[in-house]
Amino acid sequence: MDTPAVLIDVVKMQRNIQRMQQRADDLGVCLRPHVKTHKCAQVVAAQTAAGARGITVSTLKEAEYFFDLGILDILYAVAMAPHKLPQALALRRRGCALTLVTDSLAGAQAIVEFGRLQGETFAVMIEIDCDGHRSGVKPHDPVLLEIARRLGDNLTGVLTHAGESYGLDTPEALQAIAEQERARCVEAAERIRAAGLPCAHVSVGSTPTALSAVSLEGVTELRAGVYVFFDLVMHNIGVCQTDELALSVLTSVIGHQAEKGWIITDAGWMAMSRDRGTQSQKQDFGYGQVCDEQGAVIDGLLLRSANQEHGVARFNQPGVDVVAQFPLGTRLRILPNHACATGAQFGSYNAVLPTDDVQVWERLRGW
Amino acid sequence: MDTPAVLIDVVKMQRNIQRMQQRADDLGVCLRPHVKTHKCAQVVAAQTAAGARGITVSTLKEAEYFFDLGILDILYAVAMAPHKLPQALALRRRGCALTLVTDSLAGAQAIVEFGRLQGETFAVMIEIDCDGHRSGVKPHDPVLLEIARRLGDNLTGVLTHAGESYGLDTPEALQAIAEQERARCVEAAERIRAAGLPCAHVSVGSTPTALSAVSLEGVTELRAGVYVFFDLVMHNIGVCQTDELALSVLTSVIGHQAEKGWIITDAGWMAMSRDRGTQSQKQDFGYGQVCDEQGAVIDGLLLRSANQEHGVARFNQPGVDVVAQFPLGTRLRILPNHACATGAQFGSYNAVLPTDDVQVWERLRGW
Repeated sequence: MDTPAVLIDVVKMQRNIQRMQQRADDLGVCLRPHVKTHKCAQVVAAQTAAGARGITVSTLKEAEYFFDLGILDILYAVAMAPHKLPQALALRRRGCALTLVTDSLAGAQAIVEFGRLQGETFAVMIEIDCDGHRSGVKPHDPVLLEIARRLGDNLTGVLTHAGESYGLDTPEALQAIAEQERARCVEAAERIRAAGLPCAHVSVGSTPTALSAVSLEGVTELRAGVYVFFDLVMHNIGVCQTDELALSVLTSVIGHQAEKGWIITDAGWMAMSRDRGTQSQKQDFGYGQVCDEQGAVIDGLLLRSANQEHGVARFNQPGVDVVAQFPLGTRLRILPNHACATGAQFGSYNAVLPTDDVQVWERLRGW
Repeated sequence: MDTPAVLIDVVKMQRNIQRMQQRADDLGVCLRPHVKTHKCAQVVAAQTAAGARGITVSTLKEAEYFFDLGILDILYAVAMAPHKLPQALALRRRGCALTLVTDSLAGAQAIVEFGRLQGETFAVMIEIDCDGHRSGVKPHDPVLLEIARRLGDNLTGVLTHAGESYGLDTPEALQAIAEQERARCVEAAERIRAAGLPCAHVSVGSTPTALSAVSLEGVTELRAGVYVFFDLVMHNIGVCQTDELALSVLTSVIGHQAEKGWIITDAGWMAMSRDRGTQSQKQDFGYGQVCDEQGAVIDGLLLRSANQEHGVARFNQPGVDVVAQFPLGTRLRILPNHACATGAQFGSYNAVLPTDDVQVWERLRGW
């Protein structure tokens, strides 16, 4: 295998999938995984086999790709841009149970107007802002009911995403944000129902809140994505251990600066991505945690800096003879900060099966 | 055109190419552009038409791609990993004038030994460390002559790259680092020649030093890459103005948080890349400088944060009615921190020609 290459440890991936599916089952909700993390047919197949119901996507290209692979029930969880409506319509006309999202009157109006002209009733969820993190309508905002009324027969439910959970790192804080995510989304659904409008689906989720929620009363489905691989950001949040990380980058040593203790690798930022998600967390892993070729963590050895096709790994402490211990050509694995960003740098995964055989799994890119 | 999409302003690109070619001509050296910035056949063609002599690449996949397009003279400017030698040999056997790089005795030994077994004399340059930034042998290090002797007939020259120039932002400091880059690389060449060994080629360069050097006496060629598009990092270093940036990301407004003055865009980090190169510079542009659809900078409006498919743009100051001024569906352009990283997120460019016609130009990805 040439380097740099991205590996999936399929045994770990399957454990991660089982763990999240068990969470959803225990909490009495459906699991609709977010496939933006992996964008890979074989990974979706493993999630579906474990019990997932439908998928969540971040682009309409993902929706088209997975629909062509036989996935019918797809939630496009980004506020609908009016100019993309013909693309969504084409998917629905081909038989895709595609659900759209909006969080504004203007957005709802664009969907309803386009649907009226085309004779289509869309399935639309209203995005709720549960934590001030990004998009969405606050559950108590009067505009919520205006949007619901404007959507009329197109309305199918509400959804939210507690993005603020990524900034937390204690079980107590994570439980609290999970409860806030649940409560505010359910509150929005109840306001819509109290106004005499239907709101069948109540969708919440992020990997940290999904793994921390005590109750999901009133919720119908859970969305989460990065749990399938986990990464160093999730490790710092406290929802996984480093030995659960299923994604890594295989690299070769291409040089040294011996007196500085530098090991130069052929994995730079083009392979790792520029994601420095652990920079603001309790432990900064640089561009990644270095492991040996089998995946065992090498304590204190981090990828400290990166240029396009060069990485520089160095120990915390001086005194290691890096040339002797990691000679030219040595293979190493690097655990990434952010699996979604690192995976996106590659056109395919090398999936290491339980037999140690390696399969090439294609990965979708672009828009 | 769907969004997000990456645009090349071809008029600006041609001006940037002319500017750097004129620099090389004035300094009396050849220009060998680094194509890792764009990885695009049409851009190489424009650089070659303007006078470039050969190209520099960051991966052997780039070498194969551009060789198949008719470029014969290719420098692979990353220290050669021994396991990639068969791939390099195959290129040379097909007629590619491929030059390799090494900075260690072990690396030189691997190349020479493999060449001996295959009956091939490679063309190899020794990488010189001119500023402590990354790889390379210091010009006064005794190992320099050992590597040169070990390479024997494979040796063709020395090269260096003043990566530290990216941390500077005054003309005086840039002139000084350019002179340091030149002087140390020439010193290495002279030591090799004084030992009775050949060293025909002396190759230096980075966009900041190339645009700042007063003299390149003793140098034979200049390498630079990002000048072809420029970006906000280069703007902060002081070698270009924002109206010279040829690469931008076209995006659509998909929502707002009116009371916070947030404009939500469909360009998140998947489109912009995670590169935050201006974070440590004198002006932090967040994930990019927002412009109107025609490319005119909107003062104070930056892409302040980014999720995978969501960006959040906000003005420095409150008080703008963002919903009225940037309604749903509004198109904007965003200037990136780092053109190499942003370009790499896309499979093709939309090249806006002087006629305003748009051509799709493919971009190479992966390894």
